[in-house]
Amino acid sequence: MVGSERALRVGFIGAGEQGRANLIPALLQVDSVEIVAVCDRERQRAASLGSLARGAEIFSSPEAMVAASALDAVVMACPPQAHLEVARHVIPKGIHVFVEKPPCVTTSELKSLISLAKEHEVVTGVGVNFRFATPVRRLREVVENELFGQLVHLQIQHPANKPKSPMWESDSTIRSFLLAQAIHAIDLAISFGGELSLATSRHQHADGSVLIHLNLEFTNGLSATLLTGNMFPSFAFEMRAIGSRSNVATLDNLWNLTVIDSGKQGRFSGDGKRWREVWQPSPLDSGYARSGYVGELQAFAQAIRAGTRFEADFEALLPTYHAIDVASESTLEETKRSVANE
Amino acid sequence: MVGSERALRVGFIGAGEQGRANLIPALLQVDSVEIVAVCDRERQRAASLGSLARGAEIFSSPEAMVAASALDAVVMACPPQAHLEVARHVIPKGIHVFVEKPPCVTTSELKSLISLAKEHEVVTGVGVNFRFATPVRRLREVVENELFGQLVHLQIQHPANKPKSPMWESDSTIRSFLLAQAIHAIDLAISFGGELSLATSRHQHADGSVLIHLNLEFTNGLSATLLTGNMFPSFAFEMRAIGSRSNVATLDNLWNLTVIDSGKQGRFSGDGKRWREVWQPSPLDSGYARSGYVGELQAFAQAIRAGTRFEADFEALLPTYHAIDVASESTLEETKRSVANE
Amino acid sequence: MVGSERALRVGFIGAGEQGRANLIPALLQVDSVEIVAVCDRERQRAASLGSLARGAEIFSSPEAMVAASALDAVVMACPPQAHLEVARHVIPKGIHVFVEKPPCVTTSELKSLISLAKEHEVVTGVGVNFRFATPVRRLREVVENELFGQLVHLQIQHPANKPKSPMWESDSTIRSFLLAQAIHAIDLAISFGGELSLATSRHQHADGSVLIHLNLEFTNGLSATLLTGNMFPSFAFEMRAIGSRSNVATLDNLWNLTVIDSGKQGRFSGDGKRWREVWQPSPLDSGYARSGYVGELQAFAQAIRAGTRFEADFEALLPTYHAIDVASESTLEETKRSVANE
Amino acid sequence: MVGSERALRVGFIGAGEQGRANLIPALLQVDSVEIVAVCDRERQRAASLGSLARGAEIFSSPEAMVAASALDAVVMACPPQAHLEVARHVIPKGIHVFVEKPPCVTTSELKSLISLAKEHEVVTGVGVNFRFATPVRRLREVVENELFGQLVHLQIQHPANKPKSPMWESDSTIRSFLLAQAIHAIDLAISFGGELSLATSRHQHADGSVLIHLNLEFTNGLSATLLTGNMFPSFAFEMRAIGSRSNVATLDNLWNLTVIDSGKQGRFSGDGKRWREVWQPSPLDSGYARSGYVGELQAFAQAIRAGTRFEADFEALLPTYHAIDVASESTLEETKRSVANE
Repeated sequence: MVGSERALRVGFIGAGEQGRANLIPALLQVDSVEIVAVCDRERQRAASLGSLARGAEIFSSPEAMVAASALDAVVMACPPQAHLEVARHVIPKGIHVFVEKPPCVTTSELKSLISLAKEHEVVTGVGVNFRFATPVRRLREVVENELFGQLVHLQIQHPANKPKSPMWESDSTIRSFLLAQAIHAIDLAISFGGELSLATSRHQHADGSVLIHLNLEFTNGLSATLLTGNMFPSFAFEMRAIGSRSNVATLDNLWNLTVIDSGKQGRFSGDGKRWREVWQPSPLDSGYARSGYVGELQAFAQAIRAGTRFEADFEALLPTYHAIDVASESTLEETKRSVANE
Repeated sequence: MVGSERALRVGFIGAGEQGRANLIPALLQVDSVEIVAVCDRERQRAASLGSLARGAEIFSSPEAMVAASALDAVVMACPPQAHLEVARHVIPKGIHVFVEKPPCVTTSELKSLISLAKEHEVVTGVGVNFRFATPVRRLREVVENELFGQLVHLQIQHPANKPKSPMWESDSTIRSFLLAQAIHAIDLAISFGGELSLATSRHQHADGSVLIHLNLEFTNGLSATLLTGNMFPSFAFEMRAIGSRSNVATLDNLWNLTVIDSGKQGRFSGDGKRWREVWQPSPLDSGYARSGYVGELQAFAQAIRAGTRFEADFEALLPTYHAIDVASESTLEETKRSVANE
Repeated sequence: MVGSERALRVGFIGAGEQGRANLIPALLQVDSVEIVAVCDRERQRAASLGSLARGAEIFSSPEAMVAASALDAVVMACPPQAHLEVARHVIPKGIHVFVEKPPCVTTSELKSLISLAKEHEVVTGVGVNFRFATPVRRLREVVENELFGQLVHLQIQHPANKPKSPMWESDSTIRSFLLAQAIHAIDLAISFGGELSLATSRHQHADGSVLIHLNLEFTNGLSATLLTGNMFPSFAFEMRAIGSRSNVATLDNLWNLTVIDSGKQGRFSGDGKRWREVWQPSPLDSGYARSGYVGELQAFAQAIRAGTRFEADFEALLPTYHAIDVASESTLEETKRSVANE
Repeated sequence: MVGSERALRVGFIGAGEQGRANLIPALLQVDSVEIVAVCDRERQRAASLGSLARGAEIFSSPEAMVAASALDAVVMACPPQAHLEVARHVIPKGIHVFVEKPPCVTTSELKSLISLAKEHEVVTGVGVNFRFATPVRRLREVVENELFGQLVHLQIQHPANKPKSPMWESDSTIRSFLLAQAIHAIDLAISFGGELSLATSRHQHADGSVLIHLNLEFTNGLSATLLTGNMFPSFAFEMRAIGSRSNVATLDNLWNLTVIDSGKQGRFSGDGKRWREVWQPSPLDSGYARSGYVGELQAFAQAIRAGTRFEADFEALLPTYHAIDVASESTLEETKRSVANE
């Protein structure tokens, strides 16, 4: 636990698009965090991060950075193999670790990281930013309101157009797709749903692309379906939540939140049916809050200070990996697995 | 006044698109109205109306139809010259008359029809169906609600793509456009606004098309602006009403009604700002109510029975013609006319 | 087969809301069809239909109507038990029969009607108007275009808020709901999908309402999912079609048709990604074409004249009833049935 | 002119919401710019900026900051009186200056700043970020495309809900509103329109709020209308551009860009009418590009390096101030002023 009297000393690893465009700018906006070192295997790229994170020392080796920098935490946006390797290096030193998704390729790797983190009592985190996106939080408020009733079903659409070939030394395009893209939607479903009891999946192939259907069931009776795949023209994201009191809330592309409410009485019209309520962010919405990047890093830093778990830590991602395993193994014949028994 | 003990005997004149597709089908749905005769100068076209209005006698001359049919009312969808001529023929016989817009070409023609109708105590009507469209009525309910405050401003968009050349023996494309298209929007503005005090207008030409700006001011302080013209890709229609209590209601294409309400408290979220309420018709909305055709004919028939004025009679259209005169005469230099002084 | 030299003589049975508001007005707009008789068990209600269908003779007994009226066809909007009974009465007389959905309650009843109709060589029809809705036809054009690729998946949402208790002497709210509401969505899926090979379903209960998940698979590899139930605040309808060439077409409430097209090149912007094409009906869209009522009756009449099958005849509905059987029997544990084997 | 060999040394003044939330974070993302000093009259607030702009020296007096810091440029987000005062202090020292809108309260103040900047050959800038918002740039591409034709009319809606009382030692709520809010919309209209020839305005009061109508005409024949005021429930922003070739492009809340194109041929449907093209940002759009904050500061820095004018410098804002003068002085009787003559 780091006291509140000083800023957290963070080392950032990975000079790719996600680090530059989102994670470093968001990290700079987290209170009492200081990026004291930046690192990339290519020294030139690492140096270029320095202009974003002024005053940070430049490294081309994570090990060297860790040795030199008295870090409280490492934040990484690298391929999962690097996440795994660096995490295994820093966790035993008591350094907290936050990685962009995916943290690793296999479920057994994830389990080993979970054990290691427990043993060394470090806080871990995965960059599943959708959870922390402000419109998702607003949706959560709606569905948790007593008037909404119990959440009965969650329908998620996560169309995407890549990857179309295997990544990260995997031999499976589907698994690569799930780890690179659908992980967000699956994690979100599980974060709304609670304890996962069953995952089933099937997929369809066409013209070199894949369409994936994933059904999740939870111990509290909630179900979720996810339609995803790389056979869409572009990335989009929609969630629909159905409540037991005949209410529906839909979040469209992290922009429009619509609530259709069976109990609604319009202020101007007594006739509630066919009226819905729609919320949108400000036209000038800027920064990294709506997309969740600030929120995830802020909550990670708070967990370090408070000595508590971060809500999206390695362990929290385990059911998501179980679901990814089910979906990876699915064929046209449906795959079904009771997750609770594992 | 026709008692309620029997159906109104109506003769329909004009076998064009508007008659077949909208007015006759709508008329068939008005209670206690019977289409006893149909007429078109081309007998073949008149005969084809008979299959829509079964049992109606077929005529190729309005005079013959009137002489033979003991009519209570005539409903017409013809060019305005024919409206004028037939109206002058039937009104002196005490026959009520409803004409599709426009009733005539000039304001002086309209005035002469108004006098004639008063003299012979007949009910008249113009097919300004937007007034009677169910979503417009719903908008009216909203703006008339005390919570909405006083109506301060009305902004109307009426893009259209025709006519592009003069019609009806007029030599002005602009006047033809105003009589054929913008008459709806102007009439609607006036029906919301009350007593018109000033109309100003200017227009812009480009590539053979025209864009028309019309501003209306009313004695109660309300203002209205209309952006219209034939230089748009297709017909559309939007109205925005602004109330003194910081409320805005928008009707988009007679389909989506949106209310942004400064006093709103969401049921699920205390944060009212950026929430709006949206209403839509049923996906299966069918028939002639949403577009106002049934409503206008029903109200016309009721006025005949009750011996009262119909809200969209010839006289009610006079301020609309004044505004059309202003807009017809406008140039790039603005035309302004105090309507109250006329 | 009735020659084109004369109008089809049709008797209409059932003076309820659907008959008055949609079917009779639509029937009046079908070429060369004449409603010569109307019937309802309550004579007063039957008489009230007469004002809609002028000149039609009034009956309170279908048998009497049939005996007296030399009918070519009967069109009915009654409860399914009445559809069954009347169909069994008229088919043996060689009278063609069109019934509002549902035609009957059980699959075995439907099979008996199919046999009867084959034996007597009559044309039959069911009022699954969504198939004939003009925006659905437009969607069909899009997905049948070679550029769209093969149709891979169809996702349908059919939220509804009734019925909440059993109807039609059934003891199952779910079956009643499926027959009254979801039949449209299931029929539509099958009309896009072709030969059904497998139907699976599960449902969830909450606060007296039900949420139904139905998955359909077709012999050509297409799959379809339907989310429906009576636990929604109001009726709505959405279809999403996914094509093998990474295209998506969405029809929202029979109003907005959106195509997201991976090959799109904007006219004004070379950057095709994130551009979509949206179509809407005219704001003044009126009548019974958009909702499909005219289209279904027109096609039924044409089939009678041509002596061919009507595309939505009793036989065409058989796979829909198979799927309804699967969904009726489903529990929280999934029900699965190979439809091809039946 | 500052060579490209070193970063621009910038001092930032003003620790309010706009500086913290938008300008400093955006400035940190501009290449080759270094925030070397931050300043606020309240030292505590200034110090808090230091955590955003790490390594910057903290000042509570602009004069002290300028004296100590060898600045190339000052960027400010203060009240306009402070902008004026500091600009007058730093410009004679050859320091370039960028101020959040509004740069000053009166047109004569603006003129004096323009003269001063010319005399001392410094680059100036005003934070009219809408100009640089990426969706606005995309709209500009559309309207500048030859296929769009000449821009004929621009219709802008800028509803707002504040300020409701005078600010900045002004005695006019209207002028304060125009300087605080409508300045964006007016500047944008002028940036699309070119040389302004005439501005006319009228306003309406209700319940302590104001609704402002502003009409602009340009020497090239383009016109623009702006509907704005503080009597709306919340801030929103819409632009509609009409081209001479019957095309319309609409930008809704810096999110949805819609093009209705008279020449459109759908890929999937030959029927172009009623199809429109809609573009949206990515759901995860983050940072300060969409809202224009990065773009404006980047272009300002480039102008300094290149020794050229910045497109939104003090001089560029002069026609906007003329229009604000017209609108400030308007009453219910319209105010009209030929801007070209001034």
